[in-house]
Amino acid sequence: MRDVAVIGTGMTKFGELWGRTIKDIFVEAAQKAIEDAGVDHIDSLYVGCMSPGLFVGQEHLGAVVADYLGVTPIPATRVESACASGGVAFRQAFLEVASGASDIVLAGGVEKMTDGADVTEALAAAADQEYEVYHGITFPGLYAMIAKAHMHQYGTTREQMAAVAVKNHRNGAKNPNAQFRAEVTPEQVMKSTMVADPLRLLDCSPVSDGAAAVIVASLDVAKKLKKSFAKVRASAQASDTIALHGRETLTTLKAVVHAAQKAYKLANLKPTDMNIVEVHDCFTIAEIVVSEDLGFFEKGKGGEAAAKGLTSIECGKIPINTSGGLKAKGHPVGATGVAQIIELYEQLTGRAGPRQVKDAHRGMAQNMGGTGASCVIHILEAV
Amino acid sequence: MRDVAVIGTGMTKFGELWGRTIKDIFVEAAQKAIEDAGVDHIDSLYVGCMSPGLFVGQEHLGAVVADYLGVTPIPATRVESACASGGVAFRQAFLEVASGASDIVLAGGVEKMTDGADVTEALAAAADQEYEVYHGITFPGLYAMIAKAHMHQYGTTREQMAAVAVKNHRNGAKNPNAQFRAEVTPEQVMKSTMVADPLRLLDCSPVSDGAAAVIVASLDVAKKLKKSFAKVRASAQASDTIALHGRETLTTLKAVVHAAQKAYKLANLKPTDMNIVEVHDCFTIAEIVVSEDLGFFEKGKGGEAAAKGLTSIECGKIPINTSGGLKAKGHPVGATGVAQIIELYEQLTGRAGPRQVKDAHRGMAQNMGGTGASCVIHILEAV
Repeated sequence: MRDVAVIGTGMTKFGELWGRTIKDIFVEAAQKAIEDAGVDHIDSLYVGCMSPGLFVGQEHLGAVVADYLGVTPIPATRVESACASGGVAFRQAFLEVASGASDIVLAGGVEKMTDGADVTEALAAAADQEYEVYHGITFPGLYAMIAKAHMHQYGTTREQMAAVAVKNHRNGAKNPNAQFRAEVTPEQVMKSTMVADPLRLLDCSPVSDGAAAVIVASLDVAKKLKKSFAKVRASAQASDTIALHGRETLTTLKAVVHAAQKAYKLANLKPTDMNIVEVHDCFTIAEIVVSEDLGFFEKGKGGEAAAKGLTSIECGKIPINTSGGLKAKGHPVGATGVAQIIELYEQLTGRAGPRQVKDAHRGMAQNMGGTGASCVIHILEAV
Repeated sequence: MRDVAVIGTGMTKFGELWGRTIKDIFVEAAQKAIEDAGVDHIDSLYVGCMSPGLFVGQEHLGAVVADYLGVTPIPATRVESACASGGVAFRQAFLEVASGASDIVLAGGVEKMTDGADVTEALAAAADQEYEVYHGITFPGLYAMIAKAHMHQYGTTREQMAAVAVKNHRNGAKNPNAQFRAEVTPEQVMKSTMVADPLRLLDCSPVSDGAAAVIVASLDVAKKLKKSFAKVRASAQASDTIALHGRETLTTLKAVVHAAQKAYKLANLKPTDMNIVEVHDCFTIAEIVVSEDLGFFEKGKGGEAAAKGLTSIECGKIPINTSGGLKAKGHPVGATGVAQIIELYEQLTGRAGPRQVKDAHRGMAQNMGGTGASCVIHILEAV
């Protein structure tokens, strides 16, 4: 396999983009990425999107965005893995360049969620339709069960979950593309509307529109362009049972553990080698569980670590979600995994402005679908 | 890039499989393929599916089928390119093996269309939602415009289109997995219910349930298994405008032309080197146009060739759709592209029974989405 690098990025602001279409926002992100990379063409493109069919009545999204971006007749393929669609799009672009089939590939992600569809019902299509959704449960309820189990088994507290939201809003306030740029207090989180006990409104990532794109190229192409870039040290993906009831435990996400172990092995690195991490904090409890499953904290200690500030930019043991995460940056589901790669790239190339982590040399992005039935992890390194 | 081979196949019968779920039929096809290949594991899987969200309320299909097939924690990814989803799934499996990231990958496709969803509306999501579907047109109407233009420009006749249906039903009658195993006469086609002038019911592929899977492996793995296999000589994909109104002409499908030229170049082969071809005959006119765009007949002569029997198994100039094609075998859209690969494999390994083409050594599969806004082409060769 050839070495692969990220050479440019672009994204829209995440939020409620009511006046714009799914095509329009994808094209904005893609054009920015192409301009940022300074390339004069792309050989193919991937677009991660969870459900343009249910959200806006449009499938066949690869061809749609290739057409509106003006890059036909290049190959253009949509990939889907629920909320991990963006990370998987990046992985496919990585594999295509690594294979030698293409030199320069655009990996994008997009979701348009606020156009009137029943968002909760559409998102529920990422769970087991027959055994979970049919019986009435949706994602806040599923993650609430994970939270209750983690609280019961490890003593994780309501305050610790609130600390995740407070930290991610503080980071998001420094990100010009974030949906929410207001800081919140622990009290505000713990007094916000109850959604699914113990999860409250400010424990949940929002419904968002947005698009993100990165340009992936062979290391040879990256070097010829003579600009700063980030090398892909590892790409790893794993699956787990689609429904929670099929798992041995609710407090460990096995697909996250498997993908992480594979990524560390591929890169010959360990958790302490990472300087920054973007994790899939669709709910505050998810960041806690994942920070353990990635090996940054002992099992059961993720909540305590968040409350102690060990995951903040300022403390710097292991800054998590410097972008604001899904919680504050927003979560247009298909775009999220690509936006994580963008945050790593910004940090590793020193472009992260007020949220820059000093000497960030190596970072990890962890993106997952559903309650972790799919997980994709990438490790990037500054070159 | 490493050499890649197809080493085993499996599929369900195509048709109205009312008593079964999308998971169930995928698992049947996948288990058959794994058994046929004689492998004891798979490294990852791809599933092509156009719209499980709109058809059965289930996205996140990669994780779903990995779970029910019992192969977690392997990577499992859904890809979508409307009716080309299956072909694109096969291409992603090919790229993953070619890259060296995996040795044995399952490429599957599935669609469950008869469970009660509005099929015409769901399929319309493969066209341009804003500029075509919103104004009321669906696929029979779009292909009817292509047919009218082809008749006007080249003198293609109603009888010539009927000849495609007659031939494909004759082939389908010999395929135990085909949805329709009854032969039809030209008169039956031309007197069937009008759908969108000039296309009648028997010019249209049916609404179907079905799943198909193939095992893709490195040539080294294939050789170690010491059984008959087919080498992938070329994988090529292209895109075109999503809407018909954006094109210079209605009578040539540019994505088909681009993908075919690339495939011939990659394989260093020409149309006359092919012994069999599976093409995307979603409507009879599509087979005629595509047979020209692939270079088997001069532009405008595809209808005449079909009427003269040049595409039949018996005549053997270039047998097209020996499987019965989408027309008679059925068209569970996500499964179609994989089922085409299966027909090539069956023919190239001499397992096609009563529809076997003598000395079939090399074949092409052409799969497309929408009105050809995406097209993926593979060339396989017996080893």
